[in-house]
Amino acid sequence: MKMYDLIEKKKRGKRLSEREIGFLVSGYTGGEIPDYQMSAFLMAACLRGLDHKETLALTKAMRDSGDRLDLSYLGGLAADKHSTGGVGDKTSLIVGPIAAALGLKIAKMSGRGLGHTGGTIDKLESVEGFETTLSPERFSKQVQEIGLAIIGQSRNLAPADKKIYALRDLTATVDSIGLIASSIMSKKLAAGADVIVLDVKVGSGAFMKTKADAKALALEMTEIGRGCGKKVRAVLSNMDVPLGSAVGNALEVAEAVRVLRNEEKGELLELCLELAANMVSLAKNCPIDKARIMAAEAVTSGKALEVFRRWMKAQGAKDVSFIEAPDKLCPAERRRTVVARESGYIVSMNAETIGKAAALLGAGRETLDDRIDPSAGIMLLRKTGDYVRAGDPVAELYTSSAAAFEEAETAFCSALRFGAKEPRKKPLIYGIV
Amino acid sequence: MKMYDLIEKKKRGKRLSEREIGFLVSGYTGGEIPDYQMSAFLMAACLRGLDHKETLALTKAMRDSGDRLDLSYLGGLAADKHSTGGVGDKTSLIVGPIAAALGLKIAKMSGRGLGHTGGTIDKLESVEGFETTLSPERFSKQVQEIGLAIIGQSRNLAPADKKIYALRDLTATVDSIGLIASSIMSKKLAAGADVIVLDVKVGSGAFMKTKADAKALALEMTEIGRGCGKKVRAVLSNMDVPLGSAVGNALEVAEAVRVLRNEEKGELLELCLELAANMVSLAKNCPIDKARIMAAEAVTSGKALEVFRRWMKAQGAKDVSFIEAPDKLCPAERRRTVVARESGYIVSMNAETIGKAAALLGAGRETLDDRIDPSAGIMLLRKTGDYVRAGDPVAELYTSSAAAFEEAETAFCSALRFGAKEPRKKPLIYGIV
Repeated sequence: MKMYDLIEKKKRGKRLSEREIGFLVSGYTGGEIPDYQMSAFLMAACLRGLDHKETLALTKAMRDSGDRLDLSYLGGLAADKHSTGGVGDKTSLIVGPIAAALGLKIAKMSGRGLGHTGGTIDKLESVEGFETTLSPERFSKQVQEIGLAIIGQSRNLAPADKKIYALRDLTATVDSIGLIASSIMSKKLAAGADVIVLDVKVGSGAFMKTKADAKALALEMTEIGRGCGKKVRAVLSNMDVPLGSAVGNALEVAEAVRVLRNEEKGELLELCLELAANMVSLAKNCPIDKARIMAAEAVTSGKALEVFRRWMKAQGAKDVSFIEAPDKLCPAERRRTVVARESGYIVSMNAETIGKAAALLGAGRETLDDRIDPSAGIMLLRKTGDYVRAGDPVAELYTSSAAAFEEAETAFCSALRFGAKEPRKKPLIYGIV
Repeated sequence: MKMYDLIEKKKRGKRLSEREIGFLVSGYTGGEIPDYQMSAFLMAACLRGLDHKETLALTKAMRDSGDRLDLSYLGGLAADKHSTGGVGDKTSLIVGPIAAALGLKIAKMSGRGLGHTGGTIDKLESVEGFETTLSPERFSKQVQEIGLAIIGQSRNLAPADKKIYALRDLTATVDSIGLIASSIMSKKLAAGADVIVLDVKVGSGAFMKTKADAKALALEMTEIGRGCGKKVRAVLSNMDVPLGSAVGNALEVAEAVRVLRNEEKGELLELCLELAANMVSLAKNCPIDKARIMAAEAVTSGKALEVFRRWMKAQGAKDVSFIEAPDKLCPAERRRTVVARESGYIVSMNAETIGKAAALLGAGRETLDDRIDPSAGIMLLRKTGDYVRAGDPVAELYTSSAAAFEEAETAFCSALRFGAKEPRKKPLIYGIV
């Protein structure tokens, strides 16, 4: 078998066999296939597409390229969630405790933020002392005892995906449904959960800008998961505006605590309950309506907050008093209030632009080597649909570097559109696949 | 400007500006743009296409990446030809002397053979003592005095094309009309001729398998040439069967001599007269019919043969007695006659397969580092359209390595198809663009 012939075949729009895809993945990971051949193949795959069979074969080959976690000792209760990435998306910090409070076992590996989207590991590290690397024994014990552990991704989890993703990122071959689906699912499958709930984001702050693309990606991923014997569901959710009010690492942890303390209602809570309910419904084979009630009760009863507290302590948090007073987490040295420049309804707020504004303040990174400022970020005081008068405060910017304010404020303001008419409200959840 | 954005733009099917293409070519040639980004771009260009403007910009950028010959001292008579590559294509050895005999100045750089197609430089080197590298002064003097010099391609002629072509060859991105046209024309334009006649081959032994593709390539190349102020014409010619009877280096030189001696008529002579006539007609602004008569007379009068003799001597041939007795050139140690395995009309003979059979005998090379055997090759005794009886000789194989006979004979025989009905004769020349 020759890589040249596989590139040629995909260029002509033909389907590659499972054996051919296996050859390609192991050859590239092993270094026998050079980058320049792989990138030509990836571009052909972007433009000609990969069908279900090819995408499944690619996922399995990448899943099997490194370590695979065996969570069978958790008796079918091992559940995982994945978000395709958004702005202000702190759902893992809330869904994890809710699901664990309902008896599920969340043994989760998460990533760091890049570009305009945040990462759960960065958020957790804004809690002083929190450890994102645990020994396998400690990880496993914590999952069994508390029902929840979240650590950074193991280096040897789907290394083929890691190498291929890095190349895609440099060669403009990221936005292919088949390549995205196989990249996400190879890692989720290697991580070993029996139940996987996918939060597929749609809108200005998401990778998928249209419902059609998001649905196609959701279908592809659920089909892969089921093809590998997993229980999988995908929730399509709105990412036209940031989720909740906080964008930035410590700010988001604080908001998650407020939600778990039952002090903040609204879309963030709503989405977290829906995600947790789907996990419970799949893992326990119970009707979704019943699972929704159970999830809501886990919050109102304080049980989810209690799991959160035990989880923080177990993973090394030095001081958990922030759970009683979440604002303690966010001692940003410098704050600036942004006011509305005109009167009217906020008809849209571009989530990606707001994510970039937060990154300018220090909350995000351009490359994986950049350091982030855990206390930096943005608190949204008003959101799409609100009526404001010129001069009303719409957001607060937090940073430790005052020099960042100007550019970040300009970026933030460019994200807002005002209008005389109240905009039509978009649903939070577009559908379940 | 970032290479990533240019890949993305082409992936989306958008047109790149002249500035963007210039950035891409100089960045890649200079080593700032890595192979893996260039190959992703090339695949996108293959699948999305390059339009006329982009192809012209790419050609100019590659032409300007290295040395450019100035042939203005030849007063507008500098003419060049290029064949897109075929099997048994020795036209340069015949067209050059005819055109020079009619007053044109042929200052030509040629390549070596690769795969199933031969190269003029390899053919010339089968003449003992023939030098394919001349100093610029000697080259220029020879062109002025004899009207003809053919040397190997300068290393610094369109180096960008050389680097890009090598990458295309490894990444299945060869067969794009825009990329092929710009590759050929960048070298021809850098070589400085005022008149360029292109022999675009169509059929089983050519890169272009269909008339439609060949015509598209011819249109693209002539448009580029005219866009750069050159007089250009393209002849579309049949390459379903090898051209003439000889396939192999010394064998082809001997056949060229027989044609120039007016001892061999047929399609090879016919095509050479057409190519030479087009060169003369363009360079001297004379009607093509008149130019055809002049070309034929250059052969019948012996003037073209005389130019050939002077040319051979000027470039170092030790013994030109082969011009009187061409068979002297082909002392292959071992010969084998191939006979027809069945009776009937030869309805087709795959030229590419015959080229590969000749390469197996030692006449060609797989990689540019392989050595070739100048005396190896195939003489076709019968061609498509001929009626043969089982046992009739159809070809003679020549080699210096008897071990090659078996595989070469099997390959040769697999190229022939026999049938009861006389096949319809295809024209030699499909058209002029």
